[in-house]
Amino acid sequence: MSEYVAPLKDMNFVLKHVVGLEQIGKLPGCEEVTDDLVEAIFGEAAKFANEVLSPLNTVGDKQGAKLANGVVTTPPGFKDAYWKFADAGWTQISSPPEFGGQGLPHVVATAVGEMWGSANMAFKLCPLLTGGAIEALHQHASKAMQAKYLPNMASGKWTGTMNLTEPQAGSDLALVRAKAVPQSDGSYKITGQKIFITYGEHDYTENIIHMVLARIEGAPEGVKGISLFLVPKFLVNDDGSIGARNDVQCASIEHKMGIHASPTCVMMYGEKGGATGFVIGEPNRGLEYMFVMMNAARLGVGLEGVSVCERALQHALVWARERVQGRPLVPMPGNPKSVPIIHHPDVKRMLLTMKAYAESTRALAYYASAALDIAERSTDETHKRMNQALVDLLIPVVKGWSTEVGIEAASLGIQVHGGMGYIEETGAAQYLRDARISAIYEGTTGIQANDLVGRKVGREGGQTALALLTDVDKTVAALKAEGDVQLQAVAKQLASGVAEARRATDWIVTVFPGNAAAVNAGCVHYLMLMGTVLGGWMMARAALVAAKQLKAGEGDSEYSRTKLITTRFYADHILTKANGFAEALVAGADSVLEMQENAF
Amino acid sequence: MSEYVAPLKDMNFVLKHVVGLEQIGKLPGCEEVTDDLVEAIFGEAAKFANEVLSPLNTVGDKQGAKLANGVVTTPPGFKDAYWKFADAGWTQISSPPEFGGQGLPHVVATAVGEMWGSANMAFKLCPLLTGGAIEALHQHASKAMQAKYLPNMASGKWTGTMNLTEPQAGSDLALVRAKAVPQSDGSYKITGQKIFITYGEHDYTENIIHMVLARIEGAPEGVKGISLFLVPKFLVNDDGSIGARNDVQCASIEHKMGIHASPTCVMMYGEKGGATGFVIGEPNRGLEYMFVMMNAARLGVGLEGVSVCERALQHALVWARERVQGRPLVPMPGNPKSVPIIHHPDVKRMLLTMKAYAESTRALAYYASAALDIAERSTDETHKRMNQALVDLLIPVVKGWSTEVGIEAASLGIQVHGGMGYIEETGAAQYLRDARISAIYEGTTGIQANDLVGRKVGREGGQTALALLTDVDKTVAALKAEGDVQLQAVAKQLASGVAEARRATDWIVTVFPGNAAAVNAGCVHYLMLMGTVLGGWMMARAALVAAKQLKAGEGDSEYSRTKLITTRFYADHILTKANGFAEALVAGADSVLEMQENAF
Repeated sequence: MSEYVAPLKDMNFVLKHVVGLEQIGKLPGCEEVTDDLVEAIFGEAAKFANEVLSPLNTVGDKQGAKLANGVVTTPPGFKDAYWKFADAGWTQISSPPEFGGQGLPHVVATAVGEMWGSANMAFKLCPLLTGGAIEALHQHASKAMQAKYLPNMASGKWTGTMNLTEPQAGSDLALVRAKAVPQSDGSYKITGQKIFITYGEHDYTENIIHMVLARIEGAPEGVKGISLFLVPKFLVNDDGSIGARNDVQCASIEHKMGIHASPTCVMMYGEKGGATGFVIGEPNRGLEYMFVMMNAARLGVGLEGVSVCERALQHALVWARERVQGRPLVPMPGNPKSVPIIHHPDVKRMLLTMKAYAESTRALAYYASAALDIAERSTDETHKRMNQALVDLLIPVVKGWSTEVGIEAASLGIQVHGGMGYIEETGAAQYLRDARISAIYEGTTGIQANDLVGRKVGREGGQTALALLTDVDKTVAALKAEGDVQLQAVAKQLASGVAEARRATDWIVTVFPGNAAAVNAGCVHYLMLMGTVLGGWMMARAALVAAKQLKAGEGDSEYSRTKLITTRFYADHILTKANGFAEALVAGADSVLEMQENAF
Repeated sequence: MSEYVAPLKDMNFVLKHVVGLEQIGKLPGCEEVTDDLVEAIFGEAAKFANEVLSPLNTVGDKQGAKLANGVVTTPPGFKDAYWKFADAGWTQISSPPEFGGQGLPHVVATAVGEMWGSANMAFKLCPLLTGGAIEALHQHASKAMQAKYLPNMASGKWTGTMNLTEPQAGSDLALVRAKAVPQSDGSYKITGQKIFITYGEHDYTENIIHMVLARIEGAPEGVKGISLFLVPKFLVNDDGSIGARNDVQCASIEHKMGIHASPTCVMMYGEKGGATGFVIGEPNRGLEYMFVMMNAARLGVGLEGVSVCERALQHALVWARERVQGRPLVPMPGNPKSVPIIHHPDVKRMLLTMKAYAESTRALAYYASAALDIAERSTDETHKRMNQALVDLLIPVVKGWSTEVGIEAASLGIQVHGGMGYIEETGAAQYLRDARISAIYEGTTGIQANDLVGRKVGREGGQTALALLTDVDKTVAALKAEGDVQLQAVAKQLASGVAEARRATDWIVTVFPGNAAAVNAGCVHYLMLMGTVLGGWMMARAALVAAKQLKAGEGDSEYSRTKLITTRFYADHILTKANGFAEALVAGADSVLEMQENAF
């Protein structure tokens, strides 16, 4: 079994040259974020991921989390790893400094999060969800509530959860039924069942702080009557000590396709009369609060796509270099009868596909994270607003596209292994089983795509999307200005891709106001198109810098040469899908809308 | 859990109107193959698949086959089902009549095999492999050997296996090391280890007849020194009774991602001095014999892609009709606040993708099977030869393309279920886990694609492929001649697809002689392109008949209307990928060949 090694060269290069760490360092509160600091943090994180988290990935899959008598036991080694993680300060990386966090920008937390996800996706989910809960409390809770809970959550002493889904309410949260009854002391008695609660119960920490969506008695129907509550597993006394056990229980944990080490819980609130909960912010604004927090969580899940591309690639490379099978198609010294399979062009194509996906999804996720930092921290209002619009546009693309291609990469990883890939002991199958959930939770690809074509493109006349595509045009022009043959080839496919993206965006802007259903029929094609083109744009920006460095004799010349080849590969093998996505969007609505439900 | 219901309408329609059952009925030995007979057989098979095999699919996955003390126990109910299957005569369906088989044409066995695969893929593998062994013996064994083994294999009393793979010899059979030492009585002592042996050991039958590749002592190195042996688990006495236990043991069974009910065995030959084996046909021609038999097996595995598309679709449809979630995008009577998710265009798009894949892969697999029947049975030598060339071209496409899109369909099936799809109890995940192997065994997609571009296109100057594309042109012309708006739209995309296929074929014909490596770099793109275009051709042929029947007021009008819509969907959502595949093939070799193995 190979262990994960963080791709620090690419991470640092992308951050410095594609995203522009310099501009982040100029934001208020980010003054200390320099190349040196970031490289030092990445180095430590890489070590932790390699030495502590990666070796637990297989045992986590094999043994899984177990429930007995209401107690969830995580697989051997996970609790210990969690405390090493918390003690090293990793839970605090992007938490607010006023509650003990390090307040580092999203772009740094994103890169670090990529490493956790590559090394051990099931482990990563606990800090990811806690981060979401911290965000919700930081933005919306009263000062008193913050003071009571946030320091222990930021330090990792307690963890957090998000309780949205109920059996009848998945993507459609208007159907939430959990009930909250006001008490004379200002608290609420919460009752109801929540499902799919990640790390809803576990043995890492003494307390778990649940964020729970519920309806206050008498609240309006639908989404406007939902409030957000804090429901601790153990009540917390005023002096911060642990009080009585609250009326919330884990009734069962799911038997899932993957991420076995992450307990996915059915949570029962108020089976003994009502769990004590505290409303966060104002009543009836719960969904709005949830959605703000969800943006960060969606970015975190999109990142899982990046993580699996990288991890599956590394695993497949070890095998492709070791496994000797078949005559070489390209003449080789010594004329061997059989060669490591990495020599076969078709195998190299699969590995390059995984590599191109890893690097393009990485760059786009980092780019979106940087935009989020600017949107949150910039003092220039126009710059702030533009970046917020960019974040809103990019998040569904990062979430949807990266996870879809992550699944494809994990499946290719199996394919590179041939028959061995299907044997669980090889480890390749776990990446596909784990990754498969990422295109579903925190909003399926269809939900992301519908958000993209509706709120993010259709309703604003495509303004942000079209502006972004103009930026891509500039990159095409810059590529054309270079003499390099690789960059010329990239320019050709990127120009064609951006033309398809523009055609598709124009079509949505025209059709959406009168026929939202027609746009919904092809929304996933549009999301994949935008991911494909923007990913190509990221690769092209990196390739431009690499070409310049090569010319100037600067940087790591092997890395630069490989970046050029990988970008060329992306252009010819991946960007070439753009036409198909655009055509399917523009031509494909009629058959979908004509099909009657009972005719299947 | 839904049970499988065979799509008899589409099966019968495709067989009658797209493949042309009539021409099969005119072949020698097929005189009794009429519409009525075939419908009766399909009806019985459908009943068996629904009532006996489908209900065992989940328990097979959950409990799996188990090994203890050299004995493999299949999951509860499987042995009983096997004997019902054999007693009903299903093992004999296409076996030679002289050994008790029914000698039905491939096209009928293919359709029946689709049902077994949909209902219970892990079960199906045992008769599939036995069929391969029967084929090998029927074509190459001596009369005496045939008389001794074939009647009991055809009746299902004994099963058969294929033993090719060794730890160091997977796709590259030149590396086979298993050894055969001639004995004075004309038999051989076989020693060696074989891996990935499907149903290598089980508890269904009293005996198992292994087909084993091994090298006779002193044979030439490489592929020219490999012979094929029959090695029975129990030796068979001259009177046909069971004799001594042979020196072959199941050492372990694999822990796989899916098809848990199918024991995948490590087989040890000759641990106690040598297993008694009998050479089949002539020494040193084993690989050639294996490859003949493999054509049928590859068709059978390609069919697993068809089976999973259909099964995953049926399962997802039940959920999509029940699950109520989200407001309707299309106005509905009563203006409901939430509707079954099948009403959402994006969900309908996923279901239509699965349906379009099921119907197109089905038609192409049946079409290839009919060509195989003609190649085997026709008395017209030209017709025979042309159909053999067609079979040779189509088999890698059916195997590679159908299994790749089968995996995609199974993954979409999970996606339709949302979070529930990731929970094993829902059943959707099993289809993906089971189907994932189909793109690997009997030759990976890359191996199929390399065979296609090399032996089937490159070496014959694209003759068969280009002739086939001319047939597609004729269908385009026929579509254009119809006034129907759906057919016009289909014509447009099919014309564009066939143009891309021709461009890609011409490129291969030009480049292959001088640069096989460049062609290998994009061979999977070409395979996917050909599958996509030929699948579209099949859909278009069906749609033409459906349109004519609608006009004439004949046939099942609801089925015909749905076929037109599904074909239109295929054209706009799937055929539109053709450009991307062709472009990636033609433009994509440079980056793959330039990439150095150590640069990843």
